[in-house]
Amino acid sequence: MTVKALAINCTLKAKPDEASSSDAMIAVLKQAFAEKRVAVTETVRVAALNILPGVSSDEGDGDDWPTLREKILAHDILIFAGPIWMGQIGSIAKRVLERMDAFLDETDEAGRMPSYGKVAVAAIVGNEDGAHFSSAQLFQALNDVGWTIPAVAACYWVGEAMGSTDFKDLKDTPEMVAKTAKMVASNAAHLAGLLQSSPYEG
Amino acid sequence: MTVKALAINCTLKAKPDEASSSDAMIAVLKQAFAEKRVAVTETVRVAALNILPGVSSDEGDGDDWPTLREKILAHDILIFAGPIWMGQIGSIAKRVLERMDAFLDETDEAGRMPSYGKVAVAAIVGNEDGAHFSSAQLFQALNDVGWTIPAVAACYWVGEAMGSTDFKDLKDTPEMVAKTAKMVASNAAHLAGLLQSSPYEG
Amino acid sequence: MTVKALAINCTLKAKPDEASSSDAMIAVLKQAFAEKRVAVTETVRVAALNILPGVSSDEGDGDDWPTLREKILAHDILIFAGPIWMGQIGSIAKRVLERMDAFLDETDEAGRMPSYGKVAVAAIVGNEDGAHFSSAQLFQALNDVGWTIPAVAACYWVGEAMGSTDFKDLKDTPEMVAKTAKMVASNAAHLAGLLQSSPYEG
Amino acid sequence: MTVKALAINCTLKAKPDEASSSDAMIAVLKQAFAEKRVAVTETVRVAALNILPGVSSDEGDGDDWPTLREKILAHDILIFAGPIWMGQIGSIAKRVLERMDAFLDETDEAGRMPSYGKVAVAAIVGNEDGAHFSSAQLFQALNDVGWTIPAVAACYWVGEAMGSTDFKDLKDTPEMVAKTAKMVASNAAHLAGLLQSSPYEG
Repeated sequence: MTVKALAINCTLKAKPDEASSSDAMIAVLKQAFAEKRVAVTETVRVAALNILPGVSSDEGDGDDWPTLREKILAHDILIFAGPIWMGQIGSIAKRVLERMDAFLDETDEAGRMPSYGKVAVAAIVGNEDGAHFSSAQLFQALNDVGWTIPAVAACYWVGEAMGSTDFKDLKDTPEMVAKTAKMVASNAAHLAGLLQSSPYEG
Repeated sequence: MTVKALAINCTLKAKPDEASSSDAMIAVLKQAFAEKRVAVTETVRVAALNILPGVSSDEGDGDDWPTLREKILAHDILIFAGPIWMGQIGSIAKRVLERMDAFLDETDEAGRMPSYGKVAVAAIVGNEDGAHFSSAQLFQALNDVGWTIPAVAACYWVGEAMGSTDFKDLKDTPEMVAKTAKMVASNAAHLAGLLQSSPYEG
Repeated sequence: MTVKALAINCTLKAKPDEASSSDAMIAVLKQAFAEKRVAVTETVRVAALNILPGVSSDEGDGDDWPTLREKILAHDILIFAGPIWMGQIGSIAKRVLERMDAFLDETDEAGRMPSYGKVAVAAIVGNEDGAHFSSAQLFQALNDVGWTIPAVAACYWVGEAMGSTDFKDLKDTPEMVAKTAKMVASNAAHLAGLLQSSPYEG
Repeated sequence: MTVKALAINCTLKAKPDEASSSDAMIAVLKQAFAEKRVAVTETVRVAALNILPGVSSDEGDGDDWPTLREKILAHDILIFAGPIWMGQIGSIAKRVLERMDAFLDETDEAGRMPSYGKVAVAAIVGNEDGAHFSSAQLFQALNDVGWTIPAVAACYWVGEAMGSTDFKDLKDTPEMVAKTAKMVASNAAHLAGLLQSSPYEG
């Protein structure tokens, strides 16, 4: 069996050709995952889709969530990437989390949500402070709806307090980020493999 | 001079005629504000508008933020109301916060953001736990972009852990909620009045 | 191989014979773990110890952390239990997290912290709201220092908003709490077993 | 009437002569407050005191909280300073917040807590990310127990992600920190003056 990862980019920028620091961080992780023989099959630019507000798995006409939901659940690892705004995760990221609320009612006969056995990691970028607040929000919400969080599951970069540099504009990937990305990928790949072979029993 | 309040309802439900627990909490606060001679002039159902993703004050064609922004800034008090999802504030609330990020660059000659001298309070409802996490997110973000937070600025209700009762379906307003609403309104009215008469100097 | 769990009770009450709602929640989890053949070998009342402030693994004379640290690392699962104060985890819980900061520098030749391969779950109690904020704080901090978080890792109870009932005084364990405890224990036991047989590679 | 400020330094270092980045940030704020004719009369090194765990205003023999509590309440402005650990406020800071929980039951005949009319600001330092999570925790907790939060109430510095530089070791105060400190001090001084002349009515 092989382990596959999907990246979702929760930038506020809707145009997939607009450069995004979240994409730059996904690229760093993609390479780290490749070294562990895990393919990141696709990066979804969520803002380019029409993810309707709501907490069901299908909010009707024009809702792009059902397709994204299916894609997410067809992978073993979710790279949840996005920018920091106001020291926190952004509204696009929050929208995705919200739609996963429906997992709570979609359990199988053993009480397991569709996310059970799947592993999530955070990829967070910002000009400045907010990565820990963002990963706290992500980990709590994702865990509530059934995701497993591997050891050291946050790969992030922010500049000095009140700075204005973008991760995508750095000349080189900071050594600490590259090192963290390797660990995040290694741990996620390992754990997803274990859970794929031996699922939670419920 | 008189002090005026605006309520924004950040429910995920777009149709203004859909009953909302956030509206029910706003109603409790509205009465408490009335006792302090502060009119809540309007409740804006944010999900019924098209608030585009972004961090500027105008994201172009079809963006309803410029009008909402103007309305918010024409009042002295903002009642920031919304539901808890996943233990946190929802994506509609987050979207509003995000758009206020632009205040950081819209300072006057004394370095004051457009929100300076304005007072914000939180009105939070949920079936269950998440009010403190929500108010922490709101207070930090709102304060960063210039809002003042009066003493005891959160009026909230949640049911018992993992419960499913809605605030709007309660037969009576719980005594503690009514008491808190009075205090929130009294403190916000007082502080907004002071700041209206004597603005921050920058 | 067998999987063993340790519970730490981060109540503010130092006397082990003082009734604690955290202990009551640990008891619910203990039974759920027993059904999965995982023994909770001991509950440590942290406030009864002298855990010195600091971020090293030994803060010198009188520091009880080295012994607690060893005990924690001798188990596969950590039940991190404690009360909500001010909508957040308490100072005793925060102290324990802080001392684990030293794990960051205690990696083996493969870059693995002593917590690698160990699984943590949260057991949170309060009169009222704050469980999600608490689990967010716990999950982010524990994950940063190498703990793995199994699916649905928070077992919690709080009463209605601004309530004053203690979990330890409830006549019966609420059905939702009992159900959640079973799931938390099942997932944690499963994941700890997998990681014991097949450790992270670093 | 004059407005007075007290600084509490919630570093984990107990010895007042140990250099502390929190002290360095307090020094920046002290000068900014002086320009607004507000004296920071004292900096209390909290870790040097014996603040017992608990949520009453006096936990008995050896408890240094009653004295610190009195000192805090004898000032108009509280500069709540401390380091980031694990992306969050530390255990010493959390202990102080916890002890203020007692304010909830210490209301006067108009329902006002002892903190009413007093203004709190945050001074946060860390090698790296965590300032927004820390200020969110502080603002929510302090506000719950009656503190008023002036516009732009957080003065902070952190280095680049996963960095290791201390604020106290910077050659110069970063321009953005100096600018923020001026604004924090100006807003806090203004608001404390207003509330001193015209207290909340309850």
